[in-house]
Formats: sequence, C-alpha cells, structure tokens
Amino acid sequence: MRNDERKFNSLRPITMTPNFVKHPEGSVLIQVGDTKVICNASIEDRVPPFMRGQGKGWITAEYAMLPRATQDRNIRESSKGKVSGRTMEIQRLIGRALRSVVDLNSIGERTVWVDCDVIQADGGTRTASITGAFVAVVLAFGKLLENKTINKMPVTDFLGATSVGILEDGTEILDLNYIEDSTAQVDMNVVMTGSGEFVEIQGTGEEATFSMDQLHTMLNLASEGLMEIFDIQKEIIGPLADRVGETVKGSGSK
Amino acid sequence: MRNDERKFNSLRPITMTPNFVKHPEGSVLIQVGDTKVICNASIEDRVPPFMRGQGKGWITAEYAMLPRATQDRNIRESSKGKVSGRTMEIQRLIGRALRSVVDLNSIGERTVWVDCDVIQADGGTRTASITGAFVAVVLAFGKLLENKTINKMPVTDFLGATSVGILEDGTEILDLNYIEDSTAQVDMNVVMTGSGEFVEIQGTGEEATFSMDQLHTMLNLASEGLMEIFDIQKEIIGPLADRVGETVKGSGSK
Amino acid sequence: MRNDERKFNSLRPITMTPNFVKHPEGSVLIQVGDTKVICNASIEDRVPPFMRGQGKGWITAEYAMLPRATQDRNIRESSKGKVSGRTMEIQRLIGRALRSVVDLNSIGERTVWVDCDVIQADGGTRTASITGAFVAVVLAFGKLLENKTINKMPVTDFLGATSVGILEDGTEILDLNYIEDSTAQVDMNVVMTGSGEFVEIQGTGEEATFSMDQLHTMLNLASEGLMEIFDIQKEIIGPLADRVGETVKGSGSK
Amino acid sequence: MRNDERKFNSLRPITMTPNFVKHPEGSVLIQVGDTKVICNASIEDRVPPFMRGQGKGWITAEYAMLPRATQDRNIRESSKGKVSGRTMEIQRLIGRALRSVVDLNSIGERTVWVDCDVIQADGGTRTASITGAFVAVVLAFGKLLENKTINKMPVTDFLGATSVGILEDGTEILDLNYIEDSTAQVDMNVVMTGSGEFVEIQGTGEEATFSMDQLHTMLNLASEGLMEIFDIQKEIIGPLADRVGETVKGSGSK
Amino acid sequence: MRNDERKFNSLRPITMTPNFVKHPEGSVLIQVGDTKVICNASIEDRVPPFMRGQGKGWITAEYAMLPRATQDRNIRESSKGKVSGRTMEIQRLIGRALRSVVDLNSIGERTVWVDCDVIQADGGTRTASITGAFVAVVLAFGKLLENKTINKMPVTDFLGATSVGILEDGTEILDLNYIEDSTAQVDMNVVMTGSGEFVEIQGTGEEATFSMDQLHTMLNLASEGLMEIFDIQKEIIGPLADRVGETVKGSGSK
Amino acid sequence: MRNDERKFNSLRPITMTPNFVKHPEGSVLIQVGDTKVICNASIEDRVPPFMRGQGKGWITAEYAMLPRATQDRNIRESSKGKVSGRTMEIQRLIGRALRSVVDLNSIGERTVWVDCDVIQADGGTRTASITGAFVAVVLAFGKLLENKTINKMPVTDFLGATSVGILEDGTEILDLNYIEDSTAQVDMNVVMTGSGEFVEIQGTGEEATFSMDQLHTMLNLASEGLMEIFDIQKEIIGPLADRVGETVKGSGSK
Repeated sequence: MRNDERKFNSLRPITMTPNFVKHPEGSVLIQVGDTKVICNASIEDRVPPFMRGQGKGWITAEYAMLPRATQDRNIRESSKGKVSGRTMEIQRLIGRALRSVVDLNSIGERTVWVDCDVIQADGGTRTASITGAFVAVVLAFGKLLENKTINKMPVTDFLGATSVGILEDGTEILDLNYIEDSTAQVDMNVVMTGSGEFVEIQGTGEEATFSMDQLHTMLNLASEGLMEIFDIQKEIIGPLADRVGETVKGSGSK
Repeated sequence: MRNDERKFNSLRPITMTPNFVKHPEGSVLIQVGDTKVICNASIEDRVPPFMRGQGKGWITAEYAMLPRATQDRNIRESSKGKVSGRTMEIQRLIGRALRSVVDLNSIGERTVWVDCDVIQADGGTRTASITGAFVAVVLAFGKLLENKTINKMPVTDFLGATSVGILEDGTEILDLNYIEDSTAQVDMNVVMTGSGEFVEIQGTGEEATFSMDQLHTMLNLASEGLMEIFDIQKEIIGPLADRVGETVKGSGSK
Repeated sequence: MRNDERKFNSLRPITMTPNFVKHPEGSVLIQVGDTKVICNASIEDRVPPFMRGQGKGWITAEYAMLPRATQDRNIRESSKGKVSGRTMEIQRLIGRALRSVVDLNSIGERTVWVDCDVIQADGGTRTASITGAFVAVVLAFGKLLENKTINKMPVTDFLGATSVGILEDGTEILDLNYIEDSTAQVDMNVVMTGSGEFVEIQGTGEEATFSMDQLHTMLNLASEGLMEIFDIQKEIIGPLADRVGETVKGSGSK
Repeated sequence: MRNDERKFNSLRPITMTPNFVKHPEGSVLIQVGDTKVICNASIEDRVPPFMRGQGKGWITAEYAMLPRATQDRNIRESSKGKVSGRTMEIQRLIGRALRSVVDLNSIGERTVWVDCDVIQADGGTRTASITGAFVAVVLAFGKLLENKTINKMPVTDFLGATSVGILEDGTEILDLNYIEDSTAQVDMNVVMTGSGEFVEIQGTGEEATFSMDQLHTMLNLASEGLMEIFDIQKEIIGPLADRVGETVKGSGSK
Repeated sequence: MRNDERKFNSLRPITMTPNFVKHPEGSVLIQVGDTKVICNASIEDRVPPFMRGQGKGWITAEYAMLPRATQDRNIRESSKGKVSGRTMEIQRLIGRALRSVVDLNSIGERTVWVDCDVIQADGGTRTASITGAFVAVVLAFGKLLENKTINKMPVTDFLGATSVGILEDGTEILDLNYIEDSTAQVDMNVVMTGSGEFVEIQGTGEEATFSMDQLHTMLNLASEGLMEIFDIQKEIIGPLADRVGETVKGSGSK
Repeated sequence: MRNDERKFNSLRPITMTPNFVKHPEGSVLIQVGDTKVICNASIEDRVPPFMRGQGKGWITAEYAMLPRATQDRNIRESSKGKVSGRTMEIQRLIGRALRSVVDLNSIGERTVWVDCDVIQADGGTRTASITGAFVAVVLAFGKLLENKTINKMPVTDFLGATSVGILEDGTEILDLNYIEDSTAQVDMNVVMTGSGEFVEIQGTGEEATFSMDQLHTMLNLASEGLMEIFDIQKEIIGPLADRVGETVKGSGSK
C-alpha cells in the first residue's frame, strides 16, 4: 500500500477545467492529485526569425512554478535573473513532445506558445504539464478551426505523459507523488501517443541503477496508465477529439 | 453608464477564496471583476542580512503576471532575465502598504514573503493584490497564533486598495477596468486603512493634469469604495477579524 | 525651527547653471541646497521601434547617482549589472512628468533623452531632477527652434516638483533635506504645472498614515513652493520662457 | 552501409590520451571518430554550501564547446552571458551519471569538478564526454590513493555511454555521427554500468515515435557497444582498473 | 599648428577644483582642456575577502562616463547590464597606476575606492582620470592623517599621466584632444612617477606601426609634459605635497 | 640561470601544429613551453552591423581558458555570466594586433573570427595567442586564395608577440614563464611586425617602476626573440609565407 493508499498501478485522480483563463486561445487547469498546473496555449501569427519564409509553424513551451507551489518557498527565477537547468530541461521536453503530434507544415507561419505554470506541486509536474498542454493546444487549434483560419485539425494523435519509478523496497509504481518521488531509487518519465508509440523516455537512477526487466515492468505500467489519461483527455475535448488525426504527420505542404 | 454597466461609484464584484494553495501559511485567490490574483503569504524564520540582530521582522512582496494573463502574451520576466520597472514599482508598493499595518517589532526575526501572481488581468491588478495580500497575511499570522508562535495578532488595522480616475469626458469613476484604465486621463491608486487614514496615494496624469477639486472627488469615491472592501475582508477572515488591532503600531518591544 | 534653520514653508536655495556640459542640446546643473544634479537633454532623430511610423515623438528619462553622491559609497549599478527598483521608479516618474507638458505630436519622430545624474545628494534628488530636467528640455527645444527644425516651442506649460512631508512631531514641512527625509513620518512628492494643476502626487507613509486634513496642508505648502520654483525657471530660461505654451497639448497633427 | 562505411552495430574508433593537460588531477583527451573532448577532473577540498557538515563529497560537471568545434561557428556562451538549455541538460546528465558509480560517502568533504570541453564535434559529444569523464575521475582518485588521502577507490563500477538511433529508412544503428544524428528519426542516449545495469536512458523522437520492439533493438545495440567501451577504458586505466568496485555504493559512513 | 592652436609639445590648460563633492574623503574636479572628470576617493574600513587577514590595504578604481559626456549619447552601462571592455581596461589601468605609488602595507585593512566619472569628454579621459585621482587619493589620506588614523602619508611619489601620439603627417604630439585622437596613427598613454620612472606605457598603432626612434620622441614629449603636471598637482595639494614620499614603498610592516 | 635553466635571452621551445581542428578555415595548436593554445580562424561572409555597406572586412578575436588550464581551477566565464576585465583586455589586444597587418579593404565584407582557447597555461598566453593566431589567419586566407574568393594575400607583414620583464634581482629577461611572471617587478608585452616595427607595447610595473634604460634593454630582448619567432612562423606557413606582403596596407579600394 502506498502512502496515499493507492495500488502500485493506480493513477491519482485527474481533473481538467477547460477555459480556466479567458484570454488565451486554449486554456486548461489540470489537477493530478494535489499537483495543479495552468496550461495556456497562445497563437501568434509569426514564427521566430530562424524559421521565417519556410511556410511552416513552430511550437515552443515555457514552464514555471509559483514561488510557493512547493512546501518551502523557492526564489522566483525572474528575481534570480536566470532560468535554472531544471526549468530549461522541462520546457524543452514539453515543446519536443507537443511537436511530435502536430503537423507544423499545416499551420502556416504561426507560433504556438505553451505556458505551463505550476500553482501547486506534489510530484509529476512535468508530466501533468504535457498532458494538460496537449488539451490546451487542441482547444487553441479548435479556435482556429472555428475562425476558418485553418480547415483541418493539425494534431495527428493524442499525447500524454506520466511517471513510473522504483521504490526503495524494489516495487515498481505508477504516477509518483512528491513523497514517493523524493525517496524512489529510479524515476522515469514516459511520453506516449494515443496509438501507443513512445515519444520520449527519460529514466534515471541517481542513487541506483535498473535492469532490463525492471525497465519492462515500468514501461508496461506507464502504458496502462496512459490509456486512462487519453480517455480523460477525450472527454474534456469533446467533439474536437474526433478531429485529432485528420492530419497525418508530414503530409502538409512544406 | 460605464462599459460594463456599472455606476460611476460602483465597485466590480469581489470574491475571495481562502486557502487556495495548500502549502503557504496564508493563501487567497482574489477576483475583482475579471481580474484574478493568487496571493500567498509565506513565513520564513529569519530576516534579510541587513536586519539581523534587531529582534524585529520584515515583510516583502513580489508581483508577477502569467504571460497570458493579458490580451496579448507578454514575455516572461525570467526569460528576459530582468524584472521590469513596472513590476518593481508594484512590488515595492505592496510591501510598503502591508508594512504600514503590521507591527514588525512584535513578530520577532521573521520575514513574511507575499507573492501576488496575476493569473488573469482586467485592470486594477496592483490594488487587487494589496486587498488580497492583506487577507493572506492575516491568515498566515492566524497560523502563528494557532501554533502559539506569537500570542497577539500583529496586524494593527485593516488595509485595502482601489483605483479611481477621470474618464475622457471628465467623469470621475471608481475601480477602473482595463478598458477604462487604457483611456482614462487620470489614474490614481489609493491605499487606505480601516480607520480611513491614507497609506499611499499615487495619482498620475500622463496625458492630462487634474485640479484640487477633481482630486477631492476622486479621494471621496475611493474612501467609499474601500469601506465596502473592508466589509468583504472581514467576512472572509472570520473570527480573526476581531483580533486585528489588538497590537498598536510601534508598541512592540524593540 | 528646522535643522538647517529654515521655516516650515521655506525652500532651500535653488540655483541653476545652464549649458553646464557642452555636448548636449540642453544641459543644466541644478542645486537645491546641497543636492546637485546634472540634467542633460539629448535629441535623437528617431523614436523607439514600438513608436515608428506614427509621426510623433517620445521623451524618456534616465536617473543615476555617482557612487559617492551619498554619505556612504553605493555600488555602481553598472557593476551590479542591474538597475534598482528605486532608480526605475524615479526614471519612470521623470519621463511621465515631462511628457505631460510636451506636445509629442509636434516634434516629429524624435526622442528626447533626459539624463539626470546626481553628483551630490542631500534629499529631494528626484524632485530636483524634474525641475532641472524641465529647463534642460526647454533649452534643447530652443536649439531646434534656432535651427528651424521645429517652428513652435512644443512645451505647453511650466513644470516643477518639490517634496512635502510630516515630521515626527506632526509638523507639515516643505522641501525636505536628507535628515528630515530620513525621519519624516510621511513623504510626498508633488509635480505641478505652471498653471497650478497636479501632474503627479506620490504620498507614502511607511511608518505612519495621514488624514485628509494633513493631505490638504501638504498640498498647499507644495503649491506655494512651486510658484517660487517656476519664477526661478523663467529667469534661467530667459526669452524662451515666453514661448512656453505656444503649443496646446494634443493640438499637433497626429 | 552507413555514410562512413560502418556496419549498423559498429562503434567508431575510440582512442584516449591520459594526462593530456598537466594541471588537473585527472585528464584525458577522448576521440570517438572525429569527436574530440578534453575531460579534466579537478579535486577541490570542500563541498558546496548546501552540503557542508555532512561528511560526504560531491561531483559536478560542466560542458562546453569551443566556438568552432562545429561546422559553423557558435557564439561563445560567455559572450552571450548565459548558458543554453542544451548545455545545462548535458552537464546535469554527466554529473548524475558519474555520481551513480561513486560512493560519495567515502571521499570526505571534497568536490570533484569534471570539465568536458569539446574541441571538435562530430556527433555523440555528450556520450563521449561521459565515457572520457569516467576515466578522468578514476585517474583523479588514483592521485588521491597515491597521496594516501583516501585508501580505497571510491568508484563502484565502470561507466560508459553511447548513442543509438533509428535512421529514416527504419534501420536501428549504434553510435551516430553528426550526419546520422541530423537525419535520424529517433535518437537515444544510453548510460550503463560495467555490470550491465542502466543508469540513464534518454530517448526522443521529435519527428517520429518508436515502438517497444524498436526500443529493444536499440537497447541491445547499446549494450553490446558499451561492452567494447568498457574494455577500452580498462586498458587506459591500467592497474587502477582492478580497484574499481572495491567500494560498494552506500557502504561509506555517512 | 594643431587644430586648437597648440604647439606639438604643449599641454592643454589644466585646472583642478579640490573638494568638489562634499561627502568623499578626497574629491577633485579635473579639467584638461574640455575634458572634465570628477575624481572621488572613498576610504572603507575593510578590504575585499581575498585580502582579509593580511594586515594590508587595497586600492581599486571605477571609471564611467555620463551618457552625454560625448558628442553622441552613449547607452548607460547600467542599462546595458554590463560594463564594456574599454571601461574595464581603463579602470584596471587607473587602479594599477595608483597602487604603484601607495604603500599598501602602511594603511591597514582599508580599501580606497577611486571613482572617476567623466562629465565631459574631449580626449584623454583616462590620463586625466589618473592625474586627478592621484590628487583625490592624497586628499583622502590627508583626512586620515588629520584624524590620526594613520601617522605617515602612505603615498611614496607623485603620479601623473598624459598621452602622446603620431598624427597622420608623422608629427609626434603631446596631449591629444578628441579630434587628434580620432585621426592619429599611433596613440600612447604614459604613466610616470614624480621621479621620472615609468609606471605604465601603453602604445598602440591599429592603423599603423611605429619605430624605435618614434617611440623615443614620444616618450620624451610625455616626460616633459608630466613635469608640468606634477607642478600643478603640488600646488593643488598644498602642504600635503611635502609629505609625499615620507613612506618608502614596501617599507610598511606586512 | 633561470628556473627552467634558460639564459636571460632565450625563448622557450615553440611548436605549432597546423590544421589541429578540422572545421575552421585556419587552425593551429601553438605550444610555447608548457603554454598551449588552440587558435582557430573562421571566415564569415558578412560584417557586423556598424560596418555594413563600406565594402571592407573586419577581424575580431575572442580568448578564453579552459577552467583547469591553470594550477587551480577557475570558474568558467559562461557560468559567471560575464567576461572578466582581463579577458576583455586580451581579446581587444589580439584583435587590434591582427588588424594592424591585414588590409581590411581587400577582403570584402567578411569577418575573420579568431578564437584563442588556452588549454594549458604556463605564462605568456596572450603573446602565444597572437603568434599562433597570426598563423591561423594566414592559413584561413590561404583557403580563400585556393577557392579564388580573393586573389591576393591580404596580410601585409608577419606579426608576432612575446613578453619581456625584470626579475626581482633586476635582471631583464625574455619570454617569462608562469613562475617568473608571478614574481617579476615589471612585465611588458611587445607585438611587432616582421619588418621590426612596433605594433603594441604594454609595459606595467605594479609593484615597481622602470627607467628609460631598462625599457631599452627589454625592447632589444623582445626584438631579438621575435626574429626567431618569425622564422618559426615562416616554416609552418610554407609557400604561403612568400605571399605575405603582396598587399600593401591601405592600398585596397575603400
């Protein structure tokens, strides 16, 4: 039995509040247990300088925590004047993951800015960010479809993320909360598409290492958890869910 | 009639959700019309180096906006690597205002960190921050009273803030929303105590100037609005409201 | 009697040396008691990117202190690599104040850079900066009139600033020096036009608060002091003084 | 056949020059094909502030490229004034990897600084850095053993890294060079111990995704390649190789 | 004849106003032709961390220009957030030069901060800074002698600086103004002691080179000019001039 | 006899490895005793903004040290977020020196980026950088001649640098190693052309001063040493050596 009474293969309760903030084209508040992240997707009608003139779009992500999202207050990165290595790693991961399921050729010279702001943290903020950001991006493209700015949903597949790990006693578990994350021997983040392909695997064992068998067990736990996550995303997205996949990756004119 | 159908002397609806985030000692989500700010108060058991050894406490505030709190996305200050002049001005104002109603001598060598994070902006974010931060600070001190860390509420009076201004047609109005703020000739922020004394007046007329008479009209509007705000604060704070004022400013032993 | 033997409603002696530095279009050294500020106004034949193509001009101000302008040496902001909140607040105030009496539509796409460098500080550096900067700006526009670059003085009214405050014993006083400023309960900066309208009021009582009556007394003191200041400015500016007001605010073609 | 005529499961030639730079406690120049990295390990007799007083050590890594290590010149990060997200990600990876095979409890309050400076880049610079850094660290600890500063080799196992990936035609390959890396669909870095356990797996498919089967094929290729790498490391390290493993992770007194 | 009608071997007029700013221990405004620099020397009763516990002092210098000290306005280094290479070079030069004539062992653990702020520039700002800073430092030590904080003048010799150069027509000249400096083939700064020894020679010919003979001619011009400069310094310093040299370099107890 | 058994007028052994790194247009590893510097010259087909449209080229240099090039590890400048004054001084020196022997008018709108990265330091890193950078630049221009991008070698003369100094016992010596440099009274860097003209002289005596006679002795030592250095450069450059001087400085069309 885990510290929050879940089974080894149980996710924490997940809820998503769409249109949480009024200005962004896509906005969702995702809660995964006590982890809460505001995911906003903004559409800008131009791309960064290095991509101009190619007729294709770009997706980029930023991630931050409120100073008191955590048990102890963290110094604000704007006050420190620089973004930490951890933050950079996470925002690069979110951006890469989203780009893997969007056909950038079909959105024209537009940038999708995804902002994931953690307002309360209890483990798994980066995976909750990816799961929520996917919904925000679909909602934002929904606006463009409504306005007839684009005529096909550029999202090629569902996308979600979760964590798996190995506790000190050797048990493999799904969806680590903060206490589990702090004491786990091995921590692995898995990003997967709705069709069950891996987008990203990041597994690390700073205090320990892991075998091929343990890797399998963890990846299977992750796959099963992600299937539940895709169902929750579909429910939130509603009718737009049917349009996911109407564009095939790389089929857009370049 | 104003663009949101209010009368010249009406506040927008104000709601406050206490304990919005679970980690901070005091936390509140304040909504003033469509402006939403998370105000968290954190207690740290030490003071900044320049204050050590004096036996008294300190209150400091930080203010930020989510990038898409506004109609157009703003670049994150952590990415720019520096805090804007506007942000600095606002956080200095919030800190000064709060310190005016807290007896720093009676809280020992502790720092109260107040974080005001705007998640949706529609005018008046700095005044909403002050009004909400006051509640977060009272709740945080409530925790210290509960723990018997302190035995008297160190807050000496209520504190709230609102804006007043002069529209292009010369009408003086209370509590400007974003559209009003963008077109007003004069904009003034007023911070006041529960006993009706001024803490801070900041009035500016970049495109215009204002006379002594106009100043009076505006200050009266502000005073009346603030009385309503103090009533809302009292309701949210509940029994702690009676303890505000049990310490007199400057009476703490130094 | 005040620590420098002035009456409660006396200004310190004010002198201004025009053309103090040879390169700027407008330059003045202002001395207000022991406070000395070099105010330089530079005309640049373009505006910042966000204003291009609108056919109007811009005025911006920067403020700094020599490291040893004060009793103790301050670290140079260029060495710290960032500008303090206090500096930003002051330079934003100076810029706003000057823009309130210049018709930006009538100067074409030009930027007026105003640099206020405090070489010796004894209280009131921001108000002395505004009073001196006004003169530097008029002198700079005088150069443009001479060159026939423009044909009307774009300055619509005189502009000056001073401070008022309340001492610990409750006395309201005009033009605080450093010692008074350090011990005053309330400190208020007032920026006013030659026709007696307020441009900016910034009053703050960190250790105390103030009533409506005290506010009146302070504003009256400020008004009287500012009338003397406008006379001094007129004398320094000479014949250009008569041209102030020949443009009416907002009358320029946009 | 690959562009450099290797088989799908062949490593590029690897050579290591120990003691390449004279000052560091451990130094090696590693060449993996045309990728060349100077790996220096420096021992400092203290730990960072957050670790003081715990009686244990720390290992941290920094990574950089000479501006012209690449086909086109990159701007120097010291000139830009900040370290890129990519650099941070790599140096965090190198540090974590090394810490997984060193018993920090057995080295006392010492910091091992590992500097990996790429002087010529042709793909796989981060994995070459880990493989080379491991040797530099063993050599540095060799110096401490020689000086009798410590009496057991604190390195618990061998450590190496390589990359695997999937080409556009779907072939899984080992040890990608720059051209392969630029065009591969999937890129995965694998860090492994001498006993065949995983330390870190980072697989990403920005333009594509990968299945469980493809993952297996890649991990097997990596394992085989790493066994060759461990043999090369043993040869370079010489007699010290036998001392690797004489400390068991976590057995040191804390 | 030179552009300002001087002979090849004439200095520009030099004046110095001692005690120009009231707060610093030593302060002087030096004017060399149209170049004007405020030189302030501040005494701080501690040394930087790397020098603590050695019982000796330190002298460090900072140099800056007001933005409009020059013909065109320069961006303020505090706004740019970093100090330029030119500024660093100059402040390192001023510090080194002053340290060469002060016996740091005889001033105890004190730092002399020298601030050279150019308010108007017309060539030769770095040499004017050294010449003026020497006087400011002597005045500051004069204060310490008066207070009996020290009992011997720690300055071992006079110190001055000037520039020499070669015009496009090949003429060697003394003390270049801005126009000469901009067009000269060779520019050399010479720092010398009162006894005629060189402290620093920095000669550079970016567009040209110079021969041994030209070097001699320039060094002789510089020596003669510096003898005049030492006489001016002596006059300004007054009775303190006789105490220069009462300490011999390196004779202080270390 | 010196600490490394050289005579007062002996250089340390100098070797240069051309084409040390494969990507740059010109690359050389220079070793002067135990000092080792990688000098890379990169040609970019455009000039910085301030030079555009003039039809001429630019040469700029950057200098850095690996953190453990020295006896103790230095903090990486990219981690500190700023470049030190020493680094700036050196890179400005290298750039100026190279520009003195290249006819910028004859290379079109191209920038030559010279990167000098010290991998092992034992005194004289800046002079070794200049001597090596000269060779890298000639090799880079050799590539442009080969490609027929230019048809004359734009290098007008040979260029080398060395150091001279005065030991504590008063002996003047050539080419100081690190130990000598640390203890010398006077340190002087001399940059000279193949025809024996001075390009730059930078002599400084922080702890001491030097006379005209000592200056002569040092400059003669430097001249003799540099003649040997030019011979080594000629050998490395091979046939390109004959083309040095085929352009005369300033003869290009501007």
